Amino acid sequence: MTQLPAPRQTVAQIMNPSAVAFVGASEDLRKFGGRIFHNTVTGGFAGRIVPVNPKRQSLLGLPCVPLVSAATAPVDVAVIAVPRELVLDHMRDCAQAGVACCVLITAGFTETGPEGAALEQEIVASARAQGMRLIGPNCLGFINTHASLIMNSSPSMQETAHIPGGIGFISQSGALMATVYNRGVGDGARFSSAISVGNQADLELADFMEWMAQDEATRCITLYVEGFKDADRFVAAARRCREAGKPVLMVKSGRSEEGARVTMSHTASLAGSWRVLEAVCREAGVVPVDDIIGMMQAAEMISRHGKPSGDGICVVSGSGGAAAITTDRFDDVGLRLAQFSPATRTKLEEIYEPHQLGNPLDLGAMRDRSFLDAKDGGIAIAAADPDVAANLVMVTTAPQLTESTRALAAGGQDSGKPTLVVFTPGNASDGGRAAMREMGVLHYETTDEALRVLKCWLVPREAPAEAQRPQALPTGDPFAAFGPGWLAEHETKEVLARYGIRATRERPVGSAREAVMAAREIGWPVALKGFGPDIIHKSEEGAVALALPNETQLQTAWDLMARRLGRRLAGALVAEMARGEAEAILGIKHDPQFGPVVLVGLGGVLAEVLDDVVLIPAPVSPERVRALLPRLRLWPLLEGVRGGPALDVDALADAASRLSWLAVDAGARLAELDINPLFLRHKGDGVIAVDARARLD
Amino acid sequence: MTQLPAPRQTVAQIMNPSAVAFVGASEDLRKFGGRIFHNTVTGGFAGRIVPVNPKRQSLLGLPCVPLVSAATAPVDVAVIAVPRELVLDHMRDCAQAGVACCVLITAGFTETGPEGAALEQEIVASARAQGMRLIGPNCLGFINTHASLIMNSSPSMQETAHIPGGIGFISQSGALMATVYNRGVGDGARFSSAISVGNQADLELADFMEWMAQDEATRCITLYVEGFKDADRFVAAARRCREAGKPVLMVKSGRSEEGARVTMSHTASLAGSWRVLEAVCREAGVVPVDDIIGMMQAAEMISRHGKPSGDGICVVSGSGGAAAITTDRFDDVGLRLAQFSPATRTKLEEIYEPHQLGNPLDLGAMRDRSFLDAKDGGIAIAAADPDVAANLVMVTTAPQLTESTRALAAGGQDSGKPTLVVFTPGNASDGGRAAMREMGVLHYETTDEALRVLKCWLVPREAPAEAQRPQALPTGDPFAAFGPGWLAEHETKEVLARYGIRATRERPVGSAREAVMAAREIGWPVALKGFGPDIIHKSEEGAVALALPNETQLQTAWDLMARRLGRRLAGALVAEMARGEAEAILGIKHDPQFGPVVLVGLGGVLAEVLDDVVLIPAPVSPERVRALLPRLRLWPLLEGVRGGPALDVDALADAASRLSWLAVDAGARLAELDINPLFLRHKGDGVIAVDARARLD
Repeated sequence: MTQLPAPRQTVAQIMNPSAVAFVGASEDLRKFGGRIFHNTVTGGFAGRIVPVNPKRQSLLGLPCVPLVSAATAPVDVAVIAVPRELVLDHMRDCAQAGVACCVLITAGFTETGPEGAALEQEIVASARAQGMRLIGPNCLGFINTHASLIMNSSPSMQETAHIPGGIGFISQSGALMATVYNRGVGDGARFSSAISVGNQADLELADFMEWMAQDEATRCITLYVEGFKDADRFVAAARRCREAGKPVLMVKSGRSEEGARVTMSHTASLAGSWRVLEAVCREAGVVPVDDIIGMMQAAEMISRHGKPSGDGICVVSGSGGAAAITTDRFDDVGLRLAQFSPATRTKLEEIYEPHQLGNPLDLGAMRDRSFLDAKDGGIAIAAADPDVAANLVMVTTAPQLTESTRALAAGGQDSGKPTLVVFTPGNASDGGRAAMREMGVLHYETTDEALRVLKCWLVPREAPAEAQRPQALPTGDPFAAFGPGWLAEHETKEVLARYGIRATRERPVGSAREAVMAAREIGWPVALKGFGPDIIHKSEEGAVALALPNETQLQTAWDLMARRLGRRLAGALVAEMARGEAEAILGIKHDPQFGPVVLVGLGGVLAEVLDDVVLIPAPVSPERVRALLPRLRLWPLLEGVRGGPALDVDALADAASRLSWLAVDAGARLAELDINPLFLRHKGDGVIAVDARARLD
Repeated sequence: MTQLPAPRQTVAQIMNPSAVAFVGASEDLRKFGGRIFHNTVTGGFAGRIVPVNPKRQSLLGLPCVPLVSAATAPVDVAVIAVPRELVLDHMRDCAQAGVACCVLITAGFTETGPEGAALEQEIVASARAQGMRLIGPNCLGFINTHASLIMNSSPSMQETAHIPGGIGFISQSGALMATVYNRGVGDGARFSSAISVGNQADLELADFMEWMAQDEATRCITLYVEGFKDADRFVAAARRCREAGKPVLMVKSGRSEEGARVTMSHTASLAGSWRVLEAVCREAGVVPVDDIIGMMQAAEMISRHGKPSGDGICVVSGSGGAAAITTDRFDDVGLRLAQFSPATRTKLEEIYEPHQLGNPLDLGAMRDRSFLDAKDGGIAIAAADPDVAANLVMVTTAPQLTESTRALAAGGQDSGKPTLVVFTPGNASDGGRAAMREMGVLHYETTDEALRVLKCWLVPREAPAEAQRPQALPTGDPFAAFGPGWLAEHETKEVLARYGIRATRERPVGSAREAVMAAREIGWPVALKGFGPDIIHKSEEGAVALALPNETQLQTAWDLMARRLGRRLAGALVAEMARGEAEAILGIKHDPQFGPVVLVGLGGVLAEVLDDVVLIPAPVSPERVRALLPRLRLWPLLEGVRGGPALDVDALADAASRLSWLAVDAGARLAELDINPLFLRHKGDGVIAVDARARLD
């Protein structure tokens, strides 16, 4: 394989070109090539714009060239919007002309089947051979508002105000990108850039994330994702964004089984397991959002107001009813009303009746109820309270609505803390809406939207501590000695023991006599567990006998098992009867995209019934496992219900962490591993694996 | 006590008056009395309007009278908006003049404290003595759009289009009522009436619900409630609404603990237990809604489109991404995509590529992708499918957006099934918005709103079968023999047995000798459970010894218990050691507002940890309990996990139903009763109460 040439330009340079050419430019707005050219020209781009059309002398007043290579000066980026069969020739011409990146609007490639996929591979190879990058194919182009570069083929671009801002947007759907960009701008969101990545044949999601992590104008990064081209690069890019202090919000379609089906039929993306991705996002600092309009509203909040100082919210309402409903909704979604300090309360008591004073501030409970002298309803005092991170004003109909909304917003803003306004009335509050637009205050039409924005804004942004490999772990492939298929239980436990995870003492035996000798050594009572290559669900197949108290019963159990399983029984384990106070399950799954993931659950069969498990990408530190355990619904069982003694959760966290290193060392060969049950004992007594199984690919 | 005269008019007559008077009428729009008079005059009311103001000859061109009694013709309804100290005199004058109902706008009554409450009692007594009804005090009035009667004091009434419709709205908050009415009308909701009930001194929530149940114009009833004046009447009224085929939607503030605090400080309403109210609503057919704007959107859907034909939704989108996101959201909230029949698919295959055909319909997957000939995208074909109950169109930016939205909506509407449109773009879809307004199609700005509307619309409306009292239940007070305080375990079990709920066989004993004799009769092994008036948590206090296999161990257990508890030990039960496959809990709570409620949970301590219980108002039929059990998260445990045998859930349902009759018979005296655990056995083997306790007030 020959060495490929280095890319002619970086992504940063491509996003800020000096000259752009449009292959397929026209004045026909029914065509992609006509619209993207038109949008760029009218968008006010300060660089050179070169229409490429052999049939025309000029377009929109700009001189045409027949081919990019015929341009009189260098072109950085060439948009190609011509029939599929002409794409490759034009790309070759672009490469020859020194173009750094082609933006391929043309569709009909991988998304249409094998023939298109082959053609896509060909164009990628052709471009890479020349150090030329590609965006697309099957995309709508990109926007860089700070360069007034509106290089997008959507008709909605003509109706959108392109105001520079701090939101970077990368979208796997072109139509959605144009839709959400248009809606976002109308809602007050301000973008730095918006990129339709199409089929991501060359430049992909992670490339643009990495650029945005460095791009000074971008303060919050938003993604619409259907599937990942390179999961590892995505995770690495997300971490870089977090290091740069730029939150990443993501709408991922195909979260549900049905949604995955739709996504696949739409773009042939591999949807992957949402549960795993959710865990990956949590650890990498990516915030999943369920709604794409809501994502932009949250992004604007983050872009504008940065990091919250805490999580307490001050709510102000002109109606006690609205205040009460909002309080209920806070409880529903897990938001917290700020607690005013005594000093704040004392100041507010000059404005409010003491017995009606609290958070939410109910303007109807002011001493002077005329509203004429309401001024800011004390919001400036409340907002200055150290427990207040943001203010939420719920507007209801009232005399002087516009004036009072203006005063409330101004009071909130003066505190330097974000102020969000929700308009509950219809046209009766249009004056207030206009005032908020004029003042540049974030405002919403529904409570749903404001709650989603606050929830996203308040997601903690700290990176969990990196997992450190414990000393004295073995090196190399922990399963090197084993071939594909199921390991025997004792084999699995031996591997666990090497990683410091204690299992029940046990011995493999081949006869009743050996079993009795083993039991004498281990100590009565014992368990007898048959094994054999095709015995998977031991209990169900009658291959387990528990709590055998003496030789006679052990002998009887052996005979019964031997008769029942016949030649399938390769041998049996005689095992210590461990005692535990509670059961946990630990497991490893290997996700085809995101690699090894550790699974922690409680309560044996309950973990399954309640689907109550925490997934964590491997490796993970014990501290991080410990911090995540309270997310389990059954967590209170471990803390000691009704004053019972607490269980050894630190040992559980340590075992999960050790298992995560085992997962990393084993790699993709380890298809699955389960410890079920893992017995938890009282604090200080540790945990013990009672049963374990593993399967190698 | 003297007999009160009958009301002069029914609520129906009061809501449709021939003549209304305004005490405190003026032309000053800064005042309540000025605004409500002005709103009524400009609202176009066809009846007589009589301004009452001794200082003026006429107001807004209408001749004034100094007092209502000075009016030349009878007045049905008099609005009173004067200072508090003048209210009673004017009411007396109204009563003398034959007024049927006073609407008291004036505030300063119960909501301000004891003095105001006393005055409120006085005015109610004064009115009732004359057969005159009251609305308020502390309210904003009412609206009857079908009579063009806009008798509400909010300034927003001037900006609202008062278009007659099918939504009845009763609100405990005046400001919210005006707010939501204004917003609703702007959003396309059409009201029949809207009533601000204020302090509900006389006419209250249930009175207006009963009227709306009969009112021909009203098709859906909406409530904003902070607290109930008469819980029983509310439930009865809700049932009448259901019988009349009119769904009742309700936003209840104070659902959360914090919200209840806010509600109480706002109106001194007793918030009550939300969990109980939720159960009451479920059984009475009231649909709780979390958002008050959302409630009106759902009400308009119900008012306009009546009952759904099923629960399958057809989703149509111009963007595969939007289709996939919508599918995920369906899964989040529990909505179902319709499954097209083979016949429908065959027809759709003329329009769509077969491999990209499905629900959601992705317009981008049409054979002819030009959009110019997209027509209705096949929505008429899809909507005609028997599994489709409604259509949801997700609009994204596209060429010919207005035309395509119009075609999609028309295609959907032609099917006779409701069509909802969500606009995802901003101003780029303003043309589509205008088209939907013109066509009268329900449309929304966010997916949240459309999902909430569909969820509310799809709530089943069938009344559960009435509970029938089982034969052979005892009559009279089941606890007549007992005084206040805790019953002994065996006493509680005796009562349960009389209601047909089997408990473990057991015998109270006073000595170790008696214990041994009892155990011989019951059969070994036995349990020994100490009792005494102040022994409540038996296990924690060492008053329980289980599985005693023989006389020696029973004797030892007795001695230990006697030494530990001393004189607190009044005696002990020797009880059969019951075996069960799973544990349930059954309980009775007496709600101060809604009366006896039965509680069913699974899994012993887990029911508590997971807060996994179903509440059901008593009495309840076994069939209804059975139908509700699958709502328990731990329900799969009962169905037989991993192929284990199923448990006797019918017996559990029967026991819960019997317990509900016990609760009804016991009434408020029974403060609480718990059966914990109730053992479940295999199908056909029934259930058995192992421990039970009850407390009487």
